[in-house]
Formats: sequence, C-alpha cells, structure tokens
Amino acid sequence: MNSSSNSLRKKLAEQSIVKVGGAFDAMSAKLVEIHGFDAVWAGSFAISATHALPDASILTMTEFLHAASNMAESCNIPIIADCDTGFGGPSNVGHMVKKYEKAGIAAVSIEDKVFPKQNSLLEDGTQELLPEKDFVAKIIAGKDAKISNDFMIIARVEALIAGLGIDEAIKRATAYEKAGADAILIHSKKNTPQEIFEFSKKWEGNIPLISIPTSYPNVTTDELISNNFKMVIYANHTLRVSYLAMSKLLEDISKTNSLSKVEQEMSSMEEIFQLQEMYNIKKQEKEIEENLKKLGYVK
Amino acid sequence: MNSSSNSLRKKLAEQSIVKVGGAFDAMSAKLVEIHGFDAVWAGSFAISATHALPDASILTMTEFLHAASNMAESCNIPIIADCDTGFGGPSNVGHMVKKYEKAGIAAVSIEDKVFPKQNSLLEDGTQELLPEKDFVAKIIAGKDAKISNDFMIIARVEALIAGLGIDEAIKRATAYEKAGADAILIHSKKNTPQEIFEFSKKWEGNIPLISIPTSYPNVTTDELISNNFKMVIYANHTLRVSYLAMSKLLEDISKTNSLSKVEQEMSSMEEIFQLQEMYNIKKQEKEIEENLKKLGYVK
Amino acid sequence: MNSSSNSLRKKLAEQSIVKVGGAFDAMSAKLVEIHGFDAVWAGSFAISATHALPDASILTMTEFLHAASNMAESCNIPIIADCDTGFGGPSNVGHMVKKYEKAGIAAVSIEDKVFPKQNSLLEDGTQELLPEKDFVAKIIAGKDAKISNDFMIIARVEALIAGLGIDEAIKRATAYEKAGADAILIHSKKNTPQEIFEFSKKWEGNIPLISIPTSYPNVTTDELISNNFKMVIYANHTLRVSYLAMSKLLEDISKTNSLSKVEQEMSSMEEIFQLQEMYNIKKQEKEIEENLKKLGYVK
Amino acid sequence: MNSSSNSLRKKLAEQSIVKVGGAFDAMSAKLVEIHGFDAVWAGSFAISATHALPDASILTMTEFLHAASNMAESCNIPIIADCDTGFGGPSNVGHMVKKYEKAGIAAVSIEDKVFPKQNSLLEDGTQELLPEKDFVAKIIAGKDAKISNDFMIIARVEALIAGLGIDEAIKRATAYEKAGADAILIHSKKNTPQEIFEFSKKWEGNIPLISIPTSYPNVTTDELISNNFKMVIYANHTLRVSYLAMSKLLEDISKTNSLSKVEQEMSSMEEIFQLQEMYNIKKQEKEIEENLKKLGYVK
Repeated sequence: MNSSSNSLRKKLAEQSIVKVGGAFDAMSAKLVEIHGFDAVWAGSFAISATHALPDASILTMTEFLHAASNMAESCNIPIIADCDTGFGGPSNVGHMVKKYEKAGIAAVSIEDKVFPKQNSLLEDGTQELLPEKDFVAKIIAGKDAKISNDFMIIARVEALIAGLGIDEAIKRATAYEKAGADAILIHSKKNTPQEIFEFSKKWEGNIPLISIPTSYPNVTTDELISNNFKMVIYANHTLRVSYLAMSKLLEDISKTNSLSKVEQEMSSMEEIFQLQEMYNIKKQEKEIEENLKKLGYVK
Repeated sequence: MNSSSNSLRKKLAEQSIVKVGGAFDAMSAKLVEIHGFDAVWAGSFAISATHALPDASILTMTEFLHAASNMAESCNIPIIADCDTGFGGPSNVGHMVKKYEKAGIAAVSIEDKVFPKQNSLLEDGTQELLPEKDFVAKIIAGKDAKISNDFMIIARVEALIAGLGIDEAIKRATAYEKAGADAILIHSKKNTPQEIFEFSKKWEGNIPLISIPTSYPNVTTDELISNNFKMVIYANHTLRVSYLAMSKLLEDISKTNSLSKVEQEMSSMEEIFQLQEMYNIKKQEKEIEENLKKLGYVK
Repeated sequence: MNSSSNSLRKKLAEQSIVKVGGAFDAMSAKLVEIHGFDAVWAGSFAISATHALPDASILTMTEFLHAASNMAESCNIPIIADCDTGFGGPSNVGHMVKKYEKAGIAAVSIEDKVFPKQNSLLEDGTQELLPEKDFVAKIIAGKDAKISNDFMIIARVEALIAGLGIDEAIKRATAYEKAGADAILIHSKKNTPQEIFEFSKKWEGNIPLISIPTSYPNVTTDELISNNFKMVIYANHTLRVSYLAMSKLLEDISKTNSLSKVEQEMSSMEEIFQLQEMYNIKKQEKEIEENLKKLGYVK
Repeated sequence: MNSSSNSLRKKLAEQSIVKVGGAFDAMSAKLVEIHGFDAVWAGSFAISATHALPDASILTMTEFLHAASNMAESCNIPIIADCDTGFGGPSNVGHMVKKYEKAGIAAVSIEDKVFPKQNSLLEDGTQELLPEKDFVAKIIAGKDAKISNDFMIIARVEALIAGLGIDEAIKRATAYEKAGADAILIHSKKNTPQEIFEFSKKWEGNIPLISIPTSYPNVTTDELISNNFKMVIYANHTLRVSYLAMSKLLEDISKTNSLSKVEQEMSSMEEIFQLQEMYNIKKQEKEIEENLKKLGYVK
C-alpha cells in the first residue's frame, strides 16, 4: 500500500474540493503543508525555473523525480508530480510510474502533447497534441506499471490549450478515462473559467475533474465546486512571490550600503531553523545522552 | 585556466569591496547576477533549508556540489561555494577541490569546526573547533589538489563563534594563510561589527578578509572597506524573503477562496520565462529554420 | 512494513546459513540473485573501485545509496548495504537509516572505525577505532530512525582488524548488541578462520554473527555453521573476476587486429538482453496493442 | 579549449586508425586506458545493462552523462559518449552538447532513429528512422551549442540497420556532413564487413568514418584502414566478458562450500587498490606530514 496515494484518494472522496499548493523544492512543499493545503503540486514550470532552464522538456525525469522525491521525504501530505508528457513513449511512462510510486509520490500528471513540449501559457508556444491513440497507449502503460491501485494517473487534456475546442477535449477526456486514467486535468488559457465550466457541463465521466486557475485567477472555490471540480491547483504562485521578493531585496541591497536599510521584510533564521528541524538534532542528542546514561556510559 | 576564479581574483584586486549575494538554486543565483552583484554565495544553510534538512552536515558534498554546479552553469559571475568543514578529513578536501574546480566554481570556503558541524548562529549549537594543525592539513590538501592557481580556498575562522577570542582567531588566520589559504572569512555572531573590526586591526596578513554581516546588519560597506575588508557576503537574505513571501501567500490563499483576493504581489509568468530563457528556444527554432532553408529542406 | 528486511529476517531464522554475494551495480546484483544467493552485499570497496576512487570515505552517502537503490529496484532478494562508518556522527547515521529504509534496502552495516576510514585489508592502512561510547551513540541513533522493526542495523566490529584482540572485540560486540544492533559482523584479516572462531566461541550474545572470508577463503560453509555463523558474505569476488576478465580481453584486443582472434570467452548480447529485460518492452508493446484493440483503436 | 576533444582530433589526424574500447563505468574506462586504447566509448547498451534496464531510452540523459562524466574524471584519454537519439528534439540536443562539453567529454554520438529508440542489434527490434530533415535539425542545434570547435558531434547513420540500403545511407551521411557533423558512424548488423565497405567505397565526404564491428568481429584493423575507416569501436566486449566471468564465479560459489574451490581466476585486491589509487592517499598523507613539519606542527 502506498499510504500517500491512499490519503489523496480519501480527500477526493470526502472533501467538497481538494486544495493543492505548488512547490519547487522541499522547503516550499513543507510551507504548503504548514499552511493547511491538502496536497503539493511538484510543478515542472516551477522546477525548471529554479534550475534557470526553459519549461520545455529540458530537465530529465531524473531531476523532476529528484525534486518530487525530496518533497515526499519531508512532507506528510500527498505529492502530485507534474510529469509533462511522461518523458517519452509508453515504455518511458511505465518506467516513470514505477519510479514515482517507489519514491512515495501519490499521483503523476501526464499531458497529451508531443514530446518535447513547451509551457502551455507561453505566447506563440508550440502546442502540438499527440494522436489520441498514442496518449491512450501511455495511460495503459502507466496503469499497467502501478503496484498499488491507489496510485493515481492524472490525464491532462491540452485540447483547449491547442485551440481544438470543447468537443475534442470531451472526446479525449472520455477516452482517457476508458483507458484507465484516475482523474482529468482540463487546462485552459482563457482569462475566465467559462471554458472549463462548459467542459464540465458536457463531461459525463466518473473520475474527478481538476482545475489550474493560473490564467483565470478570479474563479472562486465555490464556483469550482458547483461546477463539479474536485481539485484546484495553485501551481506556480509560491515561485512567483519568491521571485519578486528576491528581486526587490537584491535591488535594495545593491542600491544601499547596509542590510539594515533594506525594506523587504524577511523571516528570521529561527523560523527557518524550525522548518528544517534543526532542533530535532538537539532533541536527538538528548535522547542519545539519556540512552547512554542507561547503558552506563554517562553519569 | 579556470576563468571564473580568475574573474573573482580580478575583482578582489581592482574593487574597493566585492559584493556577494547568497543563493540556493540556479534561479536565485541568476537573480543575484541580474541585480549587479559581483559573485554568488552558494550557502550551505540556505541549500540545506531548501531541502528541509538541518544545516548540520546532513546533506552530502554531492548535493551541495550539485546546487553550486547548477548555479555555475547558468551564471556568468563567479560562484563561491560554502563547503562547511570540507566534508571530512584532508583526503576529502582534496577530492572536493578537484570536483568543485572541474565544475567551474571559482572558490570554496571551508571552516575550522569539527565534522559534522552545526550552524554557527544556532543558539546553544555545538561549536567545537578542530585543532589548528588538523585544519592546516586540510588547507594543504586542498591547495595541493588545485589545478589552476587562481582557484581560491577561503579559510573560515570560527574562533569567535566558539568564544575563543581575538587572539586565537588571529593565530589561526595567520596559520591558515601560511598553509596556503587564499582568503580569510572571519565569522562573528555579535550584533555589531566591533568584534570583526578588532580582528582586522590586529590582522597582519596579506590575503583578503571577508565578512558575513548576518548578525550585524547595521554595518555599512564603507565601514567594511575602511576596516580592511575586501568582500562582504549577504548570505541568506534571498532565502529569508522568499520564505516570508511564500508563507504570507499561502496563508492568504488558504484563508480566501480566490487567487484574485490574494494581496501578496508576485512576478508575472513572463518575467520568469525571461530568466529561464524560454525565448532562447524560440530563437533556436528560428536559427534552425534558417539553416534548414539554406540546406534546401525548407522553402 | 519493509518486505525486503522482513525477508532477510526470515532467511536468518529459517536457514542454517545465509549466503550473500557481493555486487557493485544493478547488473552484478541481479546476477547474484539469478545464481541463487540469499541476498546482495552492496560493498563500498567494490562500488568505490568502479568509480576508480579509493575505498576511503571519498564517495559520499549519496553515491553509495544510489548504487544500492538501483540494486533494490532490480532485485527481488534483500540488499545489504555496506555503509562504512555511517558517513559521520549519530545524526548522519539517523538520516542514513531513513534514506536507506525508504529506498527498500533490507539492512545497513556500519563499522566502528573513525571517519574517514580506509579499507580494512589495506597493508599499512590506518585502522583507528572510534571510542565504544561514540559508536554506541551511532547505533542508538540508527535504531531510533528505523520505521520498520525489521530493518536491520549490522554492527561491524573492527577490533581484530585494528589488532586489539578478542577480548576487546567481544566487549564491543556485546555493547553493540545491548545498544540495539541487529547482527554482528566480525571482521578479520588473518588468513585462516581461527581468529573469528575464537571470537564466536567466547560470544554469548543472541544476535546473528556474520563472516566476510576475503582473507581466509579456505573456510567452508559447514565450518562457519558449526562455529555459529549465520551469514557469510562473498564481498568482492564479482568485482575481481570482472577486473581480470576485462584486463585480459583488452590486452588481447590491443595486441591483435581482430575481435575474432580474442581468446577471452564472453556472453552473447542475447544473454544480457535477457537480464536487462529488453523483451519486456516487446511484451509491453503487445499488451498495449491488445488493449488498444479492445478500446477500438486497432483492428 | 576542451583539451580532450583536441586530443581526439589529433589522433584522428595522425594515426592510421583510432582504437576505442567500450566501457560502462570509471573502472572499465580506466582499464581501457591502461591497455593502450586511444579513447573510451561510453556505450548506452552497456550502461543500460549495468543498471539492469533495457537499452531503449529508459535511462535519462542525466544517468548517461553521470557515467560518462565519471569516466572523464578518472581517465586521461578522450571519452566518446553514445548519446542515442540525443534525448529528444533539437533543443534537447543543444542542451546535451552544453552539458557533455562542460563535463570534459571529447565527443558525442547521436543516431538518426526515432526517440525512444531500441538497441540496433535486437532481433525484431523497432528501427524507425527520423526524417532526414529532423535529424539535420538536431545536428545544427548541436553544432550551435558547442563552445570549442574541437568538440565532436558524431552522426550515427542507422539506414543499414533499418534495411533502407546503401543509397539512403550515403544520402543521409552526406546531408549530415553538410549540416555540420564531425564524423560518420555507419552501423550495420551484417555478419561480414561487406556492407560497410560498400558504403565507404561510395562515400565521398571528408569527415572520418567509424565502424562498430559487433556483428562482424572477423574484420581486421588493416581491412578497416584500407577501406577508409579512421576509427573502430569495440563497444560492449568488456561488459560481455565481465558478465560471463561473474556468472561462472557465482555459479561456482553457489555450488561449492568454499571460496578456495572456485575455479574462476580473479585479480588480487592489490591490483584494484592500484587502479583506484588507494596509495595516493598514503602519498598525500606523507606530503601533508612533510608540509606540517616545515610549518612546525610536527617534529
């Protein structure tokens, strides 16, 4: 049993909506946990950005898995890994599922674009879709590679991003559910949620629908719930506030001649020591000391 | 020739002070570069924190090198790697110098505490110093392993952190220079720069002095310059503003029901696309297209 | 439950002796499995050698874990990881146990030498022992970090290697059992098993004894069994036959002008395709094809 | 300047033929060097096999680069990295060239099959070729990413493997040279060299031709030279002798009850200590001791 995917399944079954916060390393993931989110999204755009590399299938599965695995080791809430196109063909997806499940990840998301892909919100980006049959083959391979039934394969439908319309999106989502997908992530670059709500109205499937409201931030969770969405992913906002905060700070420092004149607020060392469990080492030292006493090494 | 260490040497020779910004991944390093700093500090506290692990020699050299190496691949300014105690004894330091120099890092900093170490600013932290002779042996091993003479080994003196006083600090710094260190980082946890200024007054060596004003943020660069410091490292402030910005954002999102009600300011996707060179891929596509035309594949 | 450590515990309980073959990568580990051994020894000497680096704590935990983890992913028999001195102090051992257990390793072995260590069979090698109390602290930390009770911490006693005699070895082994070790590996560099048999005669503990007969290859499994040993590790022989076979082959090729004149026997590509499961991909392709037929994509 | 690619260029210019030995880790690479070969082939079949994973684009660039990089760090002769199809499209090839060149690799080989690929000698393997134009685009991207002009991009022509005949092979090789390839590897699965000799007779290009005589081991270096080949790669024989030697050894051990009854010959520990430079550590210790004497720490 993979307890983290089991936990994600339970939340999907019991809650009106599952709220997921985006992260790019173990610290941001842990902050997502601390602030009460249900799960962490290990986003490929954000992880690529922290490597200062394009979100265009440049980093390999190894690096994405490494980041997601670090998150899984430090968090108690489930990790959902953004796996782009699945890093190749069906055999790559099969291998990927084995590796991610072993690493304690709860779910992987794969999208129906051609490998190598480009970010879905990139203006003039290339957004070529894989033939439906080929993506179905990936889902089959992924499903076949699962050990625990709980492990989730999320099929991300990019038909709206590619401008192919609601009907194609519905057709593909239906096919993906039939092939064994455990949830549908319907992505849209419109600046209102109207498009995904049209989709959800026409959708007759039984697996959960997921929204990533990056381009339509005005949507409320209530609206999502009443339109049949079971999960919302705030994919890259932690990255974007970090980016801005660091930019302002560095600008400040480079313009002034003393840290004390910097206006950017910041956390204390202490707060970060807490998150990284510096004090566990002191606690561990004490426990060892007590054990050594019992064993007669220390008086 | 290692051009990045050469560049760092030049800046030390030509500038009144070298300003170094702390980073923990390639994106934060690139922001340091963009905002005009002279070099990047790949800090072990910050890198440990992003792994949600204690700053206590828990991550291995492999992980620290990986982070610093990613920075070196995306930045044009020199990277200075915080290498804690050198990850073991003299043979480990020798191996470390080979690996870091090969990765294009400009300088490594090693400190004279016992391995495994604890963060220098941790209250009640263990701050045991290595015998001087043993640390001198590490410097000798590191120096011996350099290929380019320009590669820098910074000796970080922790005598003041350990409460051993100025004389011990001077004695050790002098011994480290004699053994082949290329610069002295004199660390202090006092909340004014007085202690390190006392040190610099008594210091008679010829290699550059470095300050990390984390605990004494009021110091100005002018004061540092007039007290004979050649480098100042703002070690962990990018981490700390990120941490706070993410905490506030996540708090906001979890309390509200819509991204549009979040008050935290953030960067646009666009800004980050720029940093991660998303548009280079489009540029590359165009160049390939032109080449394919010349070769007759495209009309 | 960690099923691989559970499997190792069972074999120790049920068999007269557990036979363990040494490996250095996933292929050699899988060969150990194929030839009927009970478990795999992921040896640090062999892994260091394949990296062309000294067996002297030069590789980090990250690299050793990576090798052992690859083995665990491709084998069904338990993996026992040689973890040298535990890569630092008690906090490092605690971290190590978490990482290895998560990777599906069945057991770790740590030895009571000072970090960084040198190979036990190196002539004139440095073989300084850690004070007993300090090693006991490591065992306590390791035990505390285990999630499954089945996960095994093997304490490797180097007192005989260090020339400190049987009494010191017994004293330490007894202390290590008391501190929570799950087995004792008693190492010796004598060229007969006499020394370890003396040890086992005096040993009054309840946890299993382990032998590594590198320096006394004449010992038989029957002798080991009748002297109360429960496990024998053939640590580095796969490496050594590989080394010789490759040396001879390369010598042959470089002296002759055609592969057909090479006298060294070798496996067919076919045999290796089998081990690496090349045909699983063909099988997977077929299964996908059948599924695609059922779903109506293929006729 | 990348001195290793420069060295490979020189050998190609000055020698009648360049002899390259296949390796899969740093030890096998170093054995290739020790036995007088001109360069090392970091083969993807062999590296995949040591991971017990199919040679079918399952391992990522990260793992292949890691293996090749380890070889480059321990060898003085040039490393030629087998990079399969280039790990994706043109942007991936560009990224790959940057990473491999930075790691000190002398040359990369990319082949004109569709990603993910299967081993060229696999019976009934899928051997679909990429359209010529698309592979030309990869060469352009690779060439554009080079820093040193000396770094070599080897274009591996799989037209004969795919059964498309000599004319297609010549057409493609010619196009690849025009696009900027630095050498042509013409692969064949025939059991005589006749096919590649036909190719070389028709070939009118100026860049070096390379042979991998796995399926036609009877060919002699003299025949290759007189047929205009400038490089011969013995790609996987080190792997195959290792495999057989380990299999026999493990069979022997598992059947007998004592190591002394094993008939497989093996290297001594001593020989391996030499290769992994165990004695450098002792030498380093001595040098440090002498330096400590000079500095007055030791009498």
